Amino acid sequence: MAGAELNDILRRVASGDLTVAEAMGRLATPAFEDLGFAKVDHHRRARCGFPEVIFCPGKTPEQIAEIFLRLASGGGNVLATRAGKAAFEAVAAKVPSAEFHELGRAITYRAGPQPEAHGHIAIVAAGTSDLPIAEEARITAGILDQHVTTHYDVGVAGLHRLLAHGTALQAAKVIVCVAGMEGALASVVGGLVSAPVIAVPTSVGYGASFGGLSALLTMLNSCASNVSVVNIDNGFSAGYIAAMINRQTQA
Amino acid sequence: MAGAELNDILRRVASGDLTVAEAMGRLATPAFEDLGFAKVDHHRRARCGFPEVIFCPGKTPEQIAEIFLRLASGGGNVLATRAGKAAFEAVAAKVPSAEFHELGRAITYRAGPQPEAHGHIAIVAAGTSDLPIAEEARITAGILDQHVTTHYDVGVAGLHRLLAHGTALQAAKVIVCVAGMEGALASVVGGLVSAPVIAVPTSVGYGASFGGLSALLTMLNSCASNVSVVNIDNGFSAGYIAAMINRQTQA
Amino acid sequence: MAGAELNDILRRVASGDLTVAEAMGRLATPAFEDLGFAKVDHHRRARCGFPEVIFCPGKTPEQIAEIFLRLASGGGNVLATRAGKAAFEAVAAKVPSAEFHELGRAITYRAGPQPEAHGHIAIVAAGTSDLPIAEEARITAGILDQHVTTHYDVGVAGLHRLLAHGTALQAAKVIVCVAGMEGALASVVGGLVSAPVIAVPTSVGYGASFGGLSALLTMLNSCASNVSVVNIDNGFSAGYIAAMINRQTQA
Amino acid sequence: MAGAELNDILRRVASGDLTVAEAMGRLATPAFEDLGFAKVDHHRRARCGFPEVIFCPGKTPEQIAEIFLRLASGGGNVLATRAGKAAFEAVAAKVPSAEFHELGRAITYRAGPQPEAHGHIAIVAAGTSDLPIAEEARITAGILDQHVTTHYDVGVAGLHRLLAHGTALQAAKVIVCVAGMEGALASVVGGLVSAPVIAVPTSVGYGASFGGLSALLTMLNSCASNVSVVNIDNGFSAGYIAAMINRQTQA
Amino acid sequence: MAGAELNDILRRVASGDLTVAEAMGRLATPAFEDLGFAKVDHHRRARCGFPEVIFCPGKTPEQIAEIFLRLASGGGNVLATRAGKAAFEAVAAKVPSAEFHELGRAITYRAGPQPEAHGHIAIVAAGTSDLPIAEEARITAGILDQHVTTHYDVGVAGLHRLLAHGTALQAAKVIVCVAGMEGALASVVGGLVSAPVIAVPTSVGYGASFGGLSALLTMLNSCASNVSVVNIDNGFSAGYIAAMINRQTQA
Amino acid sequence: MAGAELNDILRRVASGDLTVAEAMGRLATPAFEDLGFAKVDHHRRARCGFPEVIFCPGKTPEQIAEIFLRLASGGGNVLATRAGKAAFEAVAAKVPSAEFHELGRAITYRAGPQPEAHGHIAIVAAGTSDLPIAEEARITAGILDQHVTTHYDVGVAGLHRLLAHGTALQAAKVIVCVAGMEGALASVVGGLVSAPVIAVPTSVGYGASFGGLSALLTMLNSCASNVSVVNIDNGFSAGYIAAMINRQTQA
Amino acid sequence: MAGAELNDILRRVASGDLTVAEAMGRLATPAFEDLGFAKVDHHRRARCGFPEVIFCPGKTPEQIAEIFLRLASGGGNVLATRAGKAAFEAVAAKVPSAEFHELGRAITYRAGPQPEAHGHIAIVAAGTSDLPIAEEARITAGILDQHVTTHYDVGVAGLHRLLAHGTALQAAKVIVCVAGMEGALASVVGGLVSAPVIAVPTSVGYGASFGGLSALLTMLNSCASNVSVVNIDNGFSAGYIAAMINRQTQA
Amino acid sequence: MAGAELNDILRRVASGDLTVAEAMGRLATPAFEDLGFAKVDHHRRARCGFPEVIFCPGKTPEQIAEIFLRLASGGGNVLATRAGKAAFEAVAAKVPSAEFHELGRAITYRAGPQPEAHGHIAIVAAGTSDLPIAEEARITAGILDQHVTTHYDVGVAGLHRLLAHGTALQAAKVIVCVAGMEGALASVVGGLVSAPVIAVPTSVGYGASFGGLSALLTMLNSCASNVSVVNIDNGFSAGYIAAMINRQTQA
Repeated sequence: MAGAELNDILRRVASGDLTVAEAMGRLATPAFEDLGFAKVDHHRRARCGFPEVIFCPGKTPEQIAEIFLRLASGGGNVLATRAGKAAFEAVAAKVPSAEFHELGRAITYRAGPQPEAHGHIAIVAAGTSDLPIAEEARITAGILDQHVTTHYDVGVAGLHRLLAHGTALQAAKVIVCVAGMEGALASVVGGLVSAPVIAVPTSVGYGASFGGLSALLTMLNSCASNVSVVNIDNGFSAGYIAAMINRQTQA
Repeated sequence: MAGAELNDILRRVASGDLTVAEAMGRLATPAFEDLGFAKVDHHRRARCGFPEVIFCPGKTPEQIAEIFLRLASGGGNVLATRAGKAAFEAVAAKVPSAEFHELGRAITYRAGPQPEAHGHIAIVAAGTSDLPIAEEARITAGILDQHVTTHYDVGVAGLHRLLAHGTALQAAKVIVCVAGMEGALASVVGGLVSAPVIAVPTSVGYGASFGGLSALLTMLNSCASNVSVVNIDNGFSAGYIAAMINRQTQA
Repeated sequence: MAGAELNDILRRVASGDLTVAEAMGRLATPAFEDLGFAKVDHHRRARCGFPEVIFCPGKTPEQIAEIFLRLASGGGNVLATRAGKAAFEAVAAKVPSAEFHELGRAITYRAGPQPEAHGHIAIVAAGTSDLPIAEEARITAGILDQHVTTHYDVGVAGLHRLLAHGTALQAAKVIVCVAGMEGALASVVGGLVSAPVIAVPTSVGYGASFGGLSALLTMLNSCASNVSVVNIDNGFSAGYIAAMINRQTQA
Repeated sequence: MAGAELNDILRRVASGDLTVAEAMGRLATPAFEDLGFAKVDHHRRARCGFPEVIFCPGKTPEQIAEIFLRLASGGGNVLATRAGKAAFEAVAAKVPSAEFHELGRAITYRAGPQPEAHGHIAIVAAGTSDLPIAEEARITAGILDQHVTTHYDVGVAGLHRLLAHGTALQAAKVIVCVAGMEGALASVVGGLVSAPVIAVPTSVGYGASFGGLSALLTMLNSCASNVSVVNIDNGFSAGYIAAMINRQTQA
Repeated sequence: MAGAELNDILRRVASGDLTVAEAMGRLATPAFEDLGFAKVDHHRRARCGFPEVIFCPGKTPEQIAEIFLRLASGGGNVLATRAGKAAFEAVAAKVPSAEFHELGRAITYRAGPQPEAHGHIAIVAAGTSDLPIAEEARITAGILDQHVTTHYDVGVAGLHRLLAHGTALQAAKVIVCVAGMEGALASVVGGLVSAPVIAVPTSVGYGASFGGLSALLTMLNSCASNVSVVNIDNGFSAGYIAAMINRQTQA
Repeated sequence: MAGAELNDILRRVASGDLTVAEAMGRLATPAFEDLGFAKVDHHRRARCGFPEVIFCPGKTPEQIAEIFLRLASGGGNVLATRAGKAAFEAVAAKVPSAEFHELGRAITYRAGPQPEAHGHIAIVAAGTSDLPIAEEARITAGILDQHVTTHYDVGVAGLHRLLAHGTALQAAKVIVCVAGMEGALASVVGGLVSAPVIAVPTSVGYGASFGGLSALLTMLNSCASNVSVVNIDNGFSAGYIAAMINRQTQA
Repeated sequence: MAGAELNDILRRVASGDLTVAEAMGRLATPAFEDLGFAKVDHHRRARCGFPEVIFCPGKTPEQIAEIFLRLASGGGNVLATRAGKAAFEAVAAKVPSAEFHELGRAITYRAGPQPEAHGHIAIVAAGTSDLPIAEEARITAGILDQHVTTHYDVGVAGLHRLLAHGTALQAAKVIVCVAGMEGALASVVGGLVSAPVIAVPTSVGYGASFGGLSALLTMLNSCASNVSVVNIDNGFSAGYIAAMINRQTQA
Repeated sequence: MAGAELNDILRRVASGDLTVAEAMGRLATPAFEDLGFAKVDHHRRARCGFPEVIFCPGKTPEQIAEIFLRLASGGGNVLATRAGKAAFEAVAAKVPSAEFHELGRAITYRAGPQPEAHGHIAIVAAGTSDLPIAEEARITAGILDQHVTTHYDVGVAGLHRLLAHGTALQAAKVIVCVAGMEGALASVVGGLVSAPVIAVPTSVGYGASFGGLSALLTMLNSCASNVSVVNIDNGFSAGYIAAMINRQTQA
């Protein structure tokens, strides 16, 4: 809790505006609604500027649908990641306007029309096997009301494909770069642009790719100064961070 | 090379404005000045919006001083990282107004007064042993003309110290979080703010910290969605990326 | 075998109270009952102060039920860990009052009412996916006649949830802290209390969590001095050790 | 901050006993004295029941001596770990009754006579190369006013040496077990006693011991249920946790 | 090819006893019978003193049966390792006196009565989950005509069980020690006897046992001087080497 | 020994051209001259088509000089790798026309003028810190009488520098690609050319480069089909293999 | 794009031969045909001298068949790797003369008779379990119109089998060496020949082979100077590189 | 303690031959002489059939000399491993007939003439850098009164050198095989002989040899069935085990 809020509560206790019990309650009030199987965080949008996100693995379709409904009722956009078809069907029964994104394994609900875009996020992916992760990033940034362009299948072994996208990449405020195998794309893209690059190593590969470790190390050791890295296959965080950054241009 | 620039060159060749030889030269012109032992990149500031940076390890004091002088003569700020005292003395002999930052192991030269700040970057460090890396980030962001606040010695084992800085952290446009040992600080800070967090694992620690691997894995696996990670001990990249992001708020 | 016991046997041999053969037998007597497929340790409760525990993987339901019955016949509480439904059904057919704990994957049998509690063990878990391991710890400590409080879903990315439990945690004699992903919870909890913390890294996570390695390294490198660690997903040992420690307060 | 304390402050604000500014101060008061180069935590003894500890690496002898003096002036025992001779000489100049423990690399100051002991901690070490770590644990537990017995050079390759100590080990309330190379001692000791065992892997070994990794994995995988593990070479934490546990028997 | 054999061939070529073509053939003759899908090595028993062994994984039951028949027809004992029921049924149809060992996953055929034993091999296993590997070692040594005693379920957490076998272990010419989890048994056994110990780490364990890596490192770092190690789960090699060693006592 | 040679010896034994003793000698003759501290392989040039190479680490300057002299006396070119100044001085005293290559840490001796070149090898290096390894490759290929072009400081973060060398790279018969840090250069170069690429990861880097592991994994996982990899920092093997391949074009 | 081509385009723009728009198109023309789900690269044969290759995993049989058809229509040979039976059936329906290689998991189509061979590639495999990878290399090199000899089941534990192939190996222009388990074959083969050896570690093995890591490290550390390595199980790249090298002898 | 000895002590207690105190003493008597800084084990030769061994690292020259003297006074051979010159000088001052082995870093003392040899141990080393470890094995086996032959510098890259030693190797009762880098020698030697092979990986190598890990994994995964492995650089254990095995042939 920030000092300003605390200061305010204390003042109101001093002035008799709040009883001690009310102040205790205020300070203790959980910022979430407890469904038993989950704690729905309604304060989060205020606190973080972004809606709550449902991570589906380990939850039943019914639980996902229930949380989705509560969040949708809260008035903001809703995002559920790593969702399967069964989860979507349960959600759709309660929130008919929810949309399913099969490749990106996500369910979204949009509360209103997307606001006018400022700046844009470029999402670059090396190969077709990296698309589910790239799509997860795209959907995440989109539901956070940011404008996104995608540049897929532009791996470094055929550099001309990447260079053809140079102008678009240089116009982006932030770039998400998704690659498996040797993950060299992040360094190459990093050297072409002056915006921050969020690199997502994927577990695509075989042999000594060791489940994404190879791409992860490549990206961490990038000789380009503008590359930071998220966890293997974590398209969601990359999209989320990119949205946070692009939003800065609109403030 | 972006399409627009290429288009322009082609048009001028077509119109006779440029000979083929001139166009070839233009397309081939190296964007750097070759000192023999180094290629000084004068185009970089235009291309990336930031001045060239000198990475000192593996260069002699004389080489560092020579490159520093050329860059300072170019009219922008100059930064040399991982610099020792001998390097500074060689630089100071040629660029008397250069400054040495012992703890952060950097040499800086400022071409003019720092422009008025928009937004600010918060740099958070867990322990006193992490300060050299935190300072490297601070100096980097500063020479890139960004406003920085520092919050040092606020490790998670004494959470009250961190919470006391809550308001300042929440006001930052981007946070650099530097921690060794178990690196838990990034997750805790990530949960307190709505800005992107650039996490820097440090090699501080012993036993099973394995030279920073422990902190690195912790930060990559952060349950906070707004954390991205740079290489172990890479304060420079963190400061550079933070500056890139904060600059967006001024555009 | 402790010296006192040996001394006693030797004295009785010297005095003719025991023949050499009897002494050999006594010294050699296996402290277990051999069922062919398992050696049931009836001395263990005397030796270690705690009942025998059945680790189910690799045993058939029939074998588990048979061992369970023998132990229950011995007069103490019984615990079977990592048990599935089939194992429980086989046990229940022989020991009808046995109880099944689905989430914690355990079967328990209580020989008599739980004795009055002294002190208590607090079990803290970061996320809902960590619950099976936290429950294993809770059930283990409970069947060892210790009093337990649980504090679930209090991960560090939302620190206010954890802080709300501060008073309860500070009252505990020992704390079990269960977390996957980056495992930062152990350090934060360690810094809030003056009791020992038994940290259990879980294999919950993805990408660079490497099956729990990330949380394990985090916990081993904790900057809090009161944290010790057990194996990945080993809720049983954590509950067992916590019970050992809490029992000290009652001696 | 615990709820009780907060409740009290709020009540006193409501009653006019405290002004808002005073309450803010109280809630914000740092629990440490800032020496510039260090923050001396005077509240820690009250909060954790144990005195502050100085970790020497990265601090100058003068800084160590200054912190040591402040803590000694605070009236409790003082402990500085990983200390060299130079640090001790600086401390001794300011706190003449401070003692140096060369093998265990520690400086201690005792404010008064050691209180009467309840229970005891047994420290077991496998080989002579493990003694510095074992001694660090012994000194730590001792300065925390606990009674300690030591059992050194009892590695598992000559089991008779360990078994000769059986009675003493079985009488301990908690055991610290220090071993490098293959670290098997923890499992053997764990099977002999009914108290918790805090295992400390050491970096002693060569070849595939990989700096203590071998002993660390051995101890984490112990088939004895009462073994928990601290970081490689971390004798301090082991002694600290053992003291916490043994203190329970006196509450 | 040893020099003596070469010398002999050359002499016979010189004397006209062998034509050049015959010598080429002799030098080139493959020491195996080619079945298309396998090369049956009939020279191996002469060369190595032990019969050929069939490693079943990756071969069809029919292929296994065919190779088994050829080897049995060669007049020596036959061993097939890692064999399933289907493989046995195919073998039994062709070699009715073949025997199946379900736990040890092996098929054996004995060409004649086992010769009188000299010395014996002791096989020690830590837990019941290690039995398949221990049995593989036992069956291998047995079919190589060596005498074996087994000592199962004698893990170090209950040392009295192991010590009860002390006399038998000390009488063995060589010991095979099979253990998973922390693998400490090898060091303890190594310290009790004066014979070589062949340690077999098993993949039994969980969490940080990393598929047998923990036990492997423990055994390699054993502080007992008489321990050498084979691959994880490789009971076959352990039994084979033990037979080689025990056979020395009979030469 | 190849069959043809064996056939020939046998024929001559049969014909009486060679006695058995002579044949034995011929077959047994060591293909090296034994200096006590080293076995100088004079047959190697015939066998492998390339001269013997001296690997200096672990040899005294005198030993290196002695071996160098013997090889030079043999009439071919000589190469000593990983050589320091002291080694060179000792060599120069005996073989005055030997040359020292400080950056590439090599000593060479050329027996005659370099033959006319067919095809060429391109050596590409990412950064200036990679030059010692690149030079080792260059010197190795050169002393093996191959034509080499070098393309240094063309890392992927500034792609225009690499693309400027495109034509030269595409003309090469084989490319050696040397890079540390993230090692992405191999994939980019691999995608630009139709010749085989021998990739050399270097130990240049910090943090999570783990002594060259990062670059090694990157190169092994290259999405370009024409990349094979040698050991970390092994410029010698890369130059050697490249020479073998380029030589094919001249056969 | 090579400089020569660029030069030519610029000249034709200057001369009016090409309009600016045409030049832009020429420079931008994608070198592939976009099927929606894949980008078929028709320029590749020209650029790399080899036909496009289809990597099947992650593609449906229909997609594979469609791409196969397009490539076959282009007039060159076609290769699909890691293909199953279903993929082949779909391909055969569209390209009846396509051939399926079950063991090597590949589909090939040959546009015309294989050209006369120059030189040959030897493919050596250690054990029968390595054959799928060896066959992948053989088929790849074959469809690239190179002559191949195979030498299978010649592991180092029975060296005479390998030596029997010595003459054939020494005649090869390049050798592909495929081995799992300890991967020692590459070093032994490397020492027998004067051609480059492309080593392919396979994931065949168990225990501490760690999915091919053991063989990979062995091959990278080979004491033979002529060994370079590709990714674990990557028979395709090995065959591809070998073909590139052997082709040099025909240029 | 073995059962027979225990039985005997009990009988004598029963018969009055031993008092209880005497029996307790007997059972408790340490089998070593305590010098304060070390426990000299005089029973070891009786118990293990081999003299005590002094491991020098971490001991002062004076301590080493004192222990050496005590052991020499005990009447058997003495061995000190990993000894430097200073240690030898201190020993020689007290035991003038002690011998120093510089390359093998050992000090030996022989109490009487070496007994007549039965069988022999062959020690094989791959390269000259492996000699210190090979020598340690040789000296160890020698001081244990076994006959040893050495076969150095016979790495697999020049197989003819190894094959020249074939007859001698085939005559050995046990083989110690020492190799660094890729460690392939163990598999090749294992396939040539019918005796057990004790493989010693060495830390010789660079790049991806990772301090001996590469050779260690190679040897553990050997496809030869007769290879067991000791720790990296552990020549002592290899020599010790080989002596144990060879001694069997003389019993």
